[in-house]
Amino acid sequence: MWLLNDRRPLKVAQNTIVPNHDSEYVISSFRTEEGLVLPQATIRYSTYGTLNGDGSNVILVPAYYRGQRGGYTFWIGPGMALDTEKFFVIETEMFGNGKSSSPSNAVEQFYGPRFPFTSIRDNVKAVHELLVNGLGVRRLKAVAGFSMGGQQAFQWPLSYPGFVEKIVSSCGAAKTYGHGYVRLEGQIFALVADKTFNSGNYGIPPRAGIDAFSMVWGGWLWSQEVWRRELWKELGIATFEGALQSRRAAFALSDANDLIHQARTWQRHNVGDTPGFEGDIELALKSIDIPVLYITSRSDLYFPLGDAEYEISHLSKGRLAIVDSVWGHPAGSGTTSDEDFNFVSSEIAKFLSS
Amino acid sequence: MWLLNDRRPLKVAQNTIVPNHDSEYVISSFRTEEGLVLPQATIRYSTYGTLNGDGSNVILVPAYYRGQRGGYTFWIGPGMALDTEKFFVIETEMFGNGKSSSPSNAVEQFYGPRFPFTSIRDNVKAVHELLVNGLGVRRLKAVAGFSMGGQQAFQWPLSYPGFVEKIVSSCGAAKTYGHGYVRLEGQIFALVADKTFNSGNYGIPPRAGIDAFSMVWGGWLWSQEVWRRELWKELGIATFEGALQSRRAAFALSDANDLIHQARTWQRHNVGDTPGFEGDIELALKSIDIPVLYITSRSDLYFPLGDAEYEISHLSKGRLAIVDSVWGHPAGSGTTSDEDFNFVSSEIAKFLSS
Repeated sequence: MWLLNDRRPLKVAQNTIVPNHDSEYVISSFRTEEGLVLPQATIRYSTYGTLNGDGSNVILVPAYYRGQRGGYTFWIGPGMALDTEKFFVIETEMFGNGKSSSPSNAVEQFYGPRFPFTSIRDNVKAVHELLVNGLGVRRLKAVAGFSMGGQQAFQWPLSYPGFVEKIVSSCGAAKTYGHGYVRLEGQIFALVADKTFNSGNYGIPPRAGIDAFSMVWGGWLWSQEVWRRELWKELGIATFEGALQSRRAAFALSDANDLIHQARTWQRHNVGDTPGFEGDIELALKSIDIPVLYITSRSDLYFPLGDAEYEISHLSKGRLAIVDSVWGHPAGSGTTSDEDFNFVSSEIAKFLSS
Repeated sequence: MWLLNDRRPLKVAQNTIVPNHDSEYVISSFRTEEGLVLPQATIRYSTYGTLNGDGSNVILVPAYYRGQRGGYTFWIGPGMALDTEKFFVIETEMFGNGKSSSPSNAVEQFYGPRFPFTSIRDNVKAVHELLVNGLGVRRLKAVAGFSMGGQQAFQWPLSYPGFVEKIVSSCGAAKTYGHGYVRLEGQIFALVADKTFNSGNYGIPPRAGIDAFSMVWGGWLWSQEVWRRELWKELGIATFEGALQSRRAAFALSDANDLIHQARTWQRHNVGDTPGFEGDIELALKSIDIPVLYITSRSDLYFPLGDAEYEISHLSKGRLAIVDSVWGHPAGSGTTSDEDFNFVSSEIAKFLSS
C-alpha cells in the first residue's frame, strides 16, 4: 500500500513468516456500542509462534486501516520485534476490512450502507470475545499496533483493565482530534461526490470517487519533504507521474462502503468515550496504569508530534520514541527505510523485554 | 475566506481603506506561454495612495488564490505595512478569479473548459503590460504578495530583471514542489468525481464536487494543533460542526472551472521554467540579485518551512522571517491573530524602509 515491495528494508523483504493458523471467529448476536445487533459478527485472525505453558507469551496485533492477515510482516517473525520464537502472536482484522464482517460481505439486511457503525471499542470487544471464548486466552503480554492498530491498543486497558500488561502504539493515538476528522471527511466527501456512489447503493463501483479518495489520501501519506526531494525514487518509482499514479491507485481494489466504514471508525475514536469517562480524554489517559510505548514519526501528518506530546503528558508510564524520518505516517511501521525499521524494531523489542 | 470578520486583528477590522481607483485593463491578442491567443485579456486592478513625482513609490500587490480587489486590507492602508501615505499601491487580480479573464466570464470560444491554461508567468506578463502601457509605470519599489501572490512576486525579477527593487513573498514559494501538486490534485479529483462537472461542460454547478474540493482544502488550511486545541473558537465558531461547515462552504459561491483553472496555475509554478533556466529552480533563485523578504509560517502545510529554508539557501539577498504561529498558511497574511499581524506587518515595513 505505501511501499513498493522491491525497496522494503532487507529484513522485511527476507521475512518469510506465514501464520501457523488462519481462522475466523463468529460471534452470535453481537451488539454494537450504538445498540444495533449483528446476528453473526465475524473476526478473521491468524496466529504465529507457539503458546507457552502458562499462557504468558501472548501478543495481540490488531490490524490498521484496510489491514489483512500478513499485514504485520514488518514486526512479526523470528528475530523480529515481535519474535515468534518467544511470543505467540495473534493478528486480528478489523470490521469493515472486507474480510472480517464488513459492509461488502454482509447479508442483505446489513449489506453496504445498511451495515452498522462499529467503533474502535466494538472491535476491541469482539477481539476480546475471540481471545477469551475462542482461544482461551486469559491475559495479554502486550497489544501492539500501528496506526488504527495503535488506536485499538489504547482502548484495551480501558475496556478490559488488568487484561493487558503493556501496550505499544506506533503512529496511532488515543483520540482522533478535529484535524483527523476533517482530513478523513475530505476523503469521504471526495468519494461520495461521485454520484455513482448513490448513498452506498451502487451497482457498479464508484471508480472516480475511489480514485479521488485515494488521491486526497496521497497528499497526507508522506511529508512535504519527500516530495520536494523526490525521495519516491528510493521506492523504485522512476517519475513524478509514476508517484502520482501510485497514489491514485492506492485503494483501486477496495469497496467504497468498506473504505467509508473504517474511515468513520477512525474519525470517531476517543478512549475518553469509554463508559465512566464522559468523553474526557485526559481522565481516560490518566487511568492507564500500565507501561505504554508511544512511537511517533516526526513528520507524520495524520498523528502529529504535538498530539503525541499532549497525550503522553497524561500517561503515568509512557515512553515517547520519535522516529526521526521524513517518511511521514508509514515511518511508524518501519517499512520506509532501514534506519526507520531498526529504530522501530529495537524500541519495541527493548520495551517488551524490559 | 479563512477568518470570520468579527475576530480579525483590530487593526485589520478598523482599516477602512478603499481604492481610489478601480479599473480593468484590456490587452489585445494576449499570447499565453503555451502559445494560445486570447483576443482580449482583461486584468482587473485597483490603486491606493498617490504616485509621487518621480514615480519611485509604486508597490505592486498581486492577488492570491481567488483573491479580488480589497483582498489585501490586512497590508494596505494608512499606517499599515504597505502605507498608503507613502506608497502608491497597485492591486491586481489573477486570471481565473472570475473577474479578470476567467473560464467563467470568457466569450463562447474560450468559455469554461476551453479557457487556455495561464501560468504565473502569464499573469506577470499581463500585469507588466498594464503597468508599462496602461499606467506608465517604469519601475516598482516592490512586489509584495501572499500565497499565490508571493509566487508572482518571485517571478517578477526573473521575467523583468531590473524592473523591481525588492520583493516580499509571504507563505508563497518560487516553485510548487511535488507535495503542492498532489495536494491540489486531490482537490481537483474530488471536484471532478462529481459527474455533474461533465469535463467542465456543466449546466448546473457541481455542488457536491465543490463541497468536496472545499472540505479537502479544509484539512490543509490550519495546523493540526488548531484542531486539537479547538482554536476555531477564537474565530467566533461555537461548535466543531460549525468549524466543519465553515470549511465545506469555503468555495460555495465559486465557479468550478475557475477553481480548477487557478489550481492548475498554482500546480505548475516554477520560476526555473523561465526561459534560460531550463527548469533549474536553484539556478533561477541564484539569479535573483535583489533583496527578498521571505516570510513563512512555522505551521504552514502548503508551503512548509523546509521548502522555505531550501529556497532561501539559494538567494543571495534573502531574509527569512518565520511567523511563530499555529494558524498554518493564513498566518502569513497576518489575519490570524494580533501577534501574527504585528509580526508580519513590522517585518514588511522594516524591509521596505531599509
